[in-house]
Amino acid sequence: MVNIFHHQNNVIRRITIKEFSQYLQQPDGLVWIDMEDPQDAEVETILISLMDFHPLAIEDCQKGTDEEGHLPKVEEFDDYLFVIFNPVEFLPVDDNGKRQWEIKTSQVSAFLSKKILITHHYKPLRSISYAVQMLSKNPQTLGKGPDYLFHIIIDDIVDSYNPILDSLDDAIDSVEDEVFKAPSQQTMLDILQLKKNIMTIRRVAVYQREMLNRLSRGEFMLITEDEMIYYRNVYDHLVRMSDLADSYRDMVAGLLDAYLSVTSNKLNQVMKVLTIISTIFLPLSFITGFFGMNFRVIPLADLEWGIGIAALFMGLVAIGMLWIFKLNKWI
Amino acid sequence: MVNIFHHQNNVIRRITIKEFSQYLQQPDGLVWIDMEDPQDAEVETILISLMDFHPLAIEDCQKGTDEEGHLPKVEEFDDYLFVIFNPVEFLPVDDNGKRQWEIKTSQVSAFLSKKILITHHYKPLRSISYAVQMLSKNPQTLGKGPDYLFHIIIDDIVDSYNPILDSLDDAIDSVEDEVFKAPSQQTMLDILQLKKNIMTIRRVAVYQREMLNRLSRGEFMLITEDEMIYYRNVYDHLVRMSDLADSYRDMVAGLLDAYLSVTSNKLNQVMKVLTIISTIFLPLSFITGFFGMNFRVIPLADLEWGIGIAALFMGLVAIGMLWIFKLNKWI
Amino acid sequence: MVNIFHHQNNVIRRITIKEFSQYLQQPDGLVWIDMEDPQDAEVETILISLMDFHPLAIEDCQKGTDEEGHLPKVEEFDDYLFVIFNPVEFLPVDDNGKRQWEIKTSQVSAFLSKKILITHHYKPLRSISYAVQMLSKNPQTLGKGPDYLFHIIIDDIVDSYNPILDSLDDAIDSVEDEVFKAPSQQTMLDILQLKKNIMTIRRVAVYQREMLNRLSRGEFMLITEDEMIYYRNVYDHLVRMSDLADSYRDMVAGLLDAYLSVTSNKLNQVMKVLTIISTIFLPLSFITGFFGMNFRVIPLADLEWGIGIAALFMGLVAIGMLWIFKLNKWI
Amino acid sequence: MVNIFHHQNNVIRRITIKEFSQYLQQPDGLVWIDMEDPQDAEVETILISLMDFHPLAIEDCQKGTDEEGHLPKVEEFDDYLFVIFNPVEFLPVDDNGKRQWEIKTSQVSAFLSKKILITHHYKPLRSISYAVQMLSKNPQTLGKGPDYLFHIIIDDIVDSYNPILDSLDDAIDSVEDEVFKAPSQQTMLDILQLKKNIMTIRRVAVYQREMLNRLSRGEFMLITEDEMIYYRNVYDHLVRMSDLADSYRDMVAGLLDAYLSVTSNKLNQVMKVLTIISTIFLPLSFITGFFGMNFRVIPLADLEWGIGIAALFMGLVAIGMLWIFKLNKWI
Amino acid sequence: MVNIFHHQNNVIRRITIKEFSQYLQQPDGLVWIDMEDPQDAEVETILISLMDFHPLAIEDCQKGTDEEGHLPKVEEFDDYLFVIFNPVEFLPVDDNGKRQWEIKTSQVSAFLSKKILITHHYKPLRSISYAVQMLSKNPQTLGKGPDYLFHIIIDDIVDSYNPILDSLDDAIDSVEDEVFKAPSQQTMLDILQLKKNIMTIRRVAVYQREMLNRLSRGEFMLITEDEMIYYRNVYDHLVRMSDLADSYRDMVAGLLDAYLSVTSNKLNQVMKVLTIISTIFLPLSFITGFFGMNFRVIPLADLEWGIGIAALFMGLVAIGMLWIFKLNKWI
Repeated sequence: MVNIFHHQNNVIRRITIKEFSQYLQQPDGLVWIDMEDPQDAEVETILISLMDFHPLAIEDCQKGTDEEGHLPKVEEFDDYLFVIFNPVEFLPVDDNGKRQWEIKTSQVSAFLSKKILITHHYKPLRSISYAVQMLSKNPQTLGKGPDYLFHIIIDDIVDSYNPILDSLDDAIDSVEDEVFKAPSQQTMLDILQLKKNIMTIRRVAVYQREMLNRLSRGEFMLITEDEMIYYRNVYDHLVRMSDLADSYRDMVAGLLDAYLSVTSNKLNQVMKVLTIISTIFLPLSFITGFFGMNFRVIPLADLEWGIGIAALFMGLVAIGMLWIFKLNKWI
Repeated sequence: MVNIFHHQNNVIRRITIKEFSQYLQQPDGLVWIDMEDPQDAEVETILISLMDFHPLAIEDCQKGTDEEGHLPKVEEFDDYLFVIFNPVEFLPVDDNGKRQWEIKTSQVSAFLSKKILITHHYKPLRSISYAVQMLSKNPQTLGKGPDYLFHIIIDDIVDSYNPILDSLDDAIDSVEDEVFKAPSQQTMLDILQLKKNIMTIRRVAVYQREMLNRLSRGEFMLITEDEMIYYRNVYDHLVRMSDLADSYRDMVAGLLDAYLSVTSNKLNQVMKVLTIISTIFLPLSFITGFFGMNFRVIPLADLEWGIGIAALFMGLVAIGMLWIFKLNKWI
Repeated sequence: MVNIFHHQNNVIRRITIKEFSQYLQQPDGLVWIDMEDPQDAEVETILISLMDFHPLAIEDCQKGTDEEGHLPKVEEFDDYLFVIFNPVEFLPVDDNGKRQWEIKTSQVSAFLSKKILITHHYKPLRSISYAVQMLSKNPQTLGKGPDYLFHIIIDDIVDSYNPILDSLDDAIDSVEDEVFKAPSQQTMLDILQLKKNIMTIRRVAVYQREMLNRLSRGEFMLITEDEMIYYRNVYDHLVRMSDLADSYRDMVAGLLDAYLSVTSNKLNQVMKVLTIISTIFLPLSFITGFFGMNFRVIPLADLEWGIGIAALFMGLVAIGMLWIFKLNKWI
Repeated sequence: MVNIFHHQNNVIRRITIKEFSQYLQQPDGLVWIDMEDPQDAEVETILISLMDFHPLAIEDCQKGTDEEGHLPKVEEFDDYLFVIFNPVEFLPVDDNGKRQWEIKTSQVSAFLSKKILITHHYKPLRSISYAVQMLSKNPQTLGKGPDYLFHIIIDDIVDSYNPILDSLDDAIDSVEDEVFKAPSQQTMLDILQLKKNIMTIRRVAVYQREMLNRLSRGEFMLITEDEMIYYRNVYDHLVRMSDLADSYRDMVAGLLDAYLSVTSNKLNQVMKVLTIISTIFLPLSFITGFFGMNFRVIPLADLEWGIGIAALFMGLVAIGMLWIFKLNKWI
Repeated sequence: MVNIFHHQNNVIRRITIKEFSQYLQQPDGLVWIDMEDPQDAEVETILISLMDFHPLAIEDCQKGTDEEGHLPKVEEFDDYLFVIFNPVEFLPVDDNGKRQWEIKTSQVSAFLSKKILITHHYKPLRSISYAVQMLSKNPQTLGKGPDYLFHIIIDDIVDSYNPILDSLDDAIDSVEDEVFKAPSQQTMLDILQLKKNIMTIRRVAVYQREMLNRLSRGEFMLITEDEMIYYRNVYDHLVRMSDLADSYRDMVAGLLDAYLSVTSNKLNQVMKVLTIISTIFLPLSFITGFFGMNFRVIPLADLEWGIGIAALFMGLVAIGMLWIFKLNKWI
């Protein structure tokens, strides 16, 4: 599906591919082409025949069908920039019957020239619909230039990371509770999954931060100085995000330590119970065994209160043992 | 609440927003505007209508309502600098009924131009009150220029980190005692919380150190060379702080290792007791069992001193066992 | 075996070494020489007598007989580049009777000048055969210059890493299953082997990434600006690869933690069973021992239902114990 | 206490503060002022009134009363350098009744100008006394310029780290012995203390190394090219020191691993003994229990050699068990 | 012992110190002076009187008597370079009666000027003898200039690391076997020693790599462009070496993890046996205890097949237990 928006005299009009090819003869006004899961013919016509983009750039934007898409990057060509950006989604996955949340990255590619912005992606994207809405409300969104519109889109993509970071924060809290209240093997799996997700979003944030650093420091002629500050703003958000991701990573490392320590504490607890039980009953059983031997003469055995005396003695032994434990602060 | 201080001929006068707008017509003397939790109308009037600051900077300074505020940064605009700084507080938090201390960051934003300093924050701030006091005592504090006044404020903010670092130091000492004297699951939680706090203050110190490095090396036209040395001084404090935070981090890592080792030592201790008890009483119980069997002929059984001989033998076995333990240095 | 391809007027012809020496008199068209495990005489004739390459470069390319070959590098000489590249293979090795997969690197050396490309390797190489095929289908592959042809070869080498990365990914998944389902000592060995393989491919990717970075940023005169973008493309693949290898490394580190934790969980499980059994039967055995003592007077012993009462009491003790375990969530 | 040395025509004379103020009128010859724990009036007169140093530098040098002093740094002012250096001492501290050695840093500040060197410190310092001795023996020590004299002092400070590094080396060896021969909880404390000391000296070495790097590469006008090589020499010593500290850190990390492994080995040993004892005596006790049951008909019970046969059987069981252990290499 | 080689008209002649001082009057041809453990008088005459080298350089080269020598470095003086290089040896050391192999570094210093190379070392050195042999076979070795000869020496020093790296590789393999087959406390010591050795050789490789990087990139006037490629070659070897050392370090870290995991696996194994034995025999012993109680009425006791029925029941219990273990995959 290909949508072409044409801005002239502050009016937005949808045009066809044919009209776009006429526009190219005499470029008047500004154009945004959004290609959502385009057909091969559309890619052929627009990207190759009409715009004549570099084959490697076109190849890269089609890698978007891969599961994770291409890593973010920006490349400068003669009169256009080629940019790849990674939106992320937080999707439930089924990992051996356990429900897990996994962060999945996808790919948006963009060709940015003086008068034309072309965006290319496979799945429908919230940030694109948002830009379309903005456009219908305020034609100036495109009127300020394709780089301004592009900044709107990537700013919204970066904003869409926030709820994911929030859910990671919640997940860390809930796993922390689990670790200290009811740790199980599943907890370990959750910690590993959490770590994986944090590393994914960290990687996305770091790569895009570097890219926006380049966009915002005037390295490319196509980004005007006025726009640079907007890209700087997106850059700031990504710095904050990668900083958060770093601190999440630290917290998850702490959780892992805590998990191992809690598990080992439990072992200690269990061992203590075992030791106390054994230490009390092994001597007592020995005493009963002693009086259970089949000797002809057994001390106390013929007294009427013999068993009472023996029981008393055993009681004293047990109390003595408990008292020693108390002294050693075991119970 | 908005306070406007006007300095002229070494006299400080509080002026209204209206007077300030007149001042802007013919800027005579120096002005400091402190906005503490300002109303929207005040922000509108001062930051937008009168000063015409960049919308993104205004947006950034209003993010201060977030829990942690924006990360520290400095940005240069045409004729002013926009600076974000993070004061920190050490607040008690309730974590599942356990009292914990948590370091919370907040945000102060400042617009610094040739003749005007505007500070913007949400909570009342000790460093701002301190600057107001200085001003009333010595009008020259503003007379030396807005950048000198600004340096006074951030220097005081950085000084306010010191007591927090001291309490972290105390906390490390007390947790160290806990680890070696009475380690519990709570100790682990304390270590994790300590680590989190140290990482927070380290992050704050590192970001602000980088920012002050830029302020102090002459990167910005608005900071005069004479002022640079004052910023260098603040920079030095932050270097010291991040260095301290680094060594605290090392110490907490050491505490974690110590905690795990102490726990495992305790397990060893418990196991040793269990082994000693079992190793003594299992053989003895076997002997009693042996003489407790219901055979017609049992050796020693019919002797009058049979049970005495058996008891003697058991005693020897027990002593032998203890002697072996002694040799192996188990007791 | 030496194959010499000569391109002129868009026609590819295989020529002999003799014809090549004539060609050198009057270089007309472009030449690619592929030396696969060449004889000493061939090396002598082509690399030394005819081309007069630097002795150290020739020495380096002959190190390829070593098990792992030389590390990737690029060196600039007066009128040629000397490049070493590392193809990798995933080979089964026999490690003490256990079948393991090990990543083995080998070496391709290339001399790249304006009109001549010489490739040198010891084992037959898929990427070279692929280039030969391309050549027979489309003579332009060489017609675009030796650097274009060389890019084709290294691009294919880099592409050949993909299936290996995929099998590493599969191996991680299968080891993860093993860790959580049936961890054994073999699992530990598998994790170590996996780590070794990932570190190998990471190293290869990182070194070659650095090398391609240099090739693609115009550091060398021999690489035309048009070709630079192709090398940039290969560079991108290697960035992606080293990024993948980094995340694999993280995952394997996670697996190691998981393995240790699962093992320690199992110990906990076993200890719990032991403790429950001991805690139930040690008191019960004490009671039977108590009534087994040979005293003249034993309470209950003469009642007809004595043993029933005793059994009932023991049953209550056992149930009480189980109830305590239930309360402590041990069973 | 303030000592002022004046060098003229290769003669060293001690002068008073008054003579020094006259000297400043017409600076003839070279001067070294050493201020050891100076009174406020002396600081006032010399540093402020006479020399007019920057207030922040004076403030920094007075921070030396703090426990650890200011971090090493060098700052360039108009016609003088301000340098802070950290001598270290190895002091016994009392940590909960246990004697520990702790590395303590202190602070020496120096103002270095063309003709005057001023050193400022609180405690008496070996390196200063050494410089005074050198001076009395050979006036040329000051005659070669204040920077030469200053190099003598810091070279001696750096040399004074060597015995401390040696005692750390010894401490590592002795802790290593402890770990493998008689590990206790104290060992863990020793390892932590060792790590802390190593990190302290490492930090001192690294900061001063960076400072001397700047002093030795001609960044400051006041250091002549001939002197630079002397500072380079001190720099080399510090590189060696930080390299040693790095390798000590690695060794201490190894000790920690070893300690944990030794502790866990001991647990293994104890568990093995427990298992062997239990595995032998539990079956034997069962057999005695079997023949101890009060059935009317008990096999073997009425035979004269019944108990002998039973004992033989038990012996065979015990031997069989031991044989199985032997096979499993447990004993 | 001092050997002086003089090269003129492609003839090598040994000359005396006296002849050398004459040569210095009218430098004709090239000279190599090798000082092996020289007497103080020789050092005095050659390095100080005749060559007039900088005192600090002479001091540095005499530090070679220390156990480990000075760290590698290169320093440029007016018309000569001063270079320190570290040969290494793999020596057996006696560590508390256990034979260990330890890597020991020593020091070779060299003064390299246009026409003269002076090497200085304490122990006889294979690489120096090798250079002397080369010289006698082919006078051109010195004829190509002192820098060529120097490259021969350091190339041979670097080559001499190879067998040491090979033995480290073998040692890793043998320790890996030990870890998985018969881990003991000695294994831990071996791993630590291995790690120490790897860190030593890594450090040597890294420092010398940096040094050769500087020598090979034309930083020093004395190294001609033609020679630079030879130094580049030595640099390449050191890159390979430090890369190997890095991967060895990774492998040793893996071994440590494996060792801890194997030890913990063994504990698991032992615990399982203990649990199985206890779980089978504690219930059985309870049953025998039950029928061993001295009640007047005991069920089954008066039946002729009573003990048989009891034995059958016990057998069923034991089989049931084993079956449960089977289900839980414990045996």
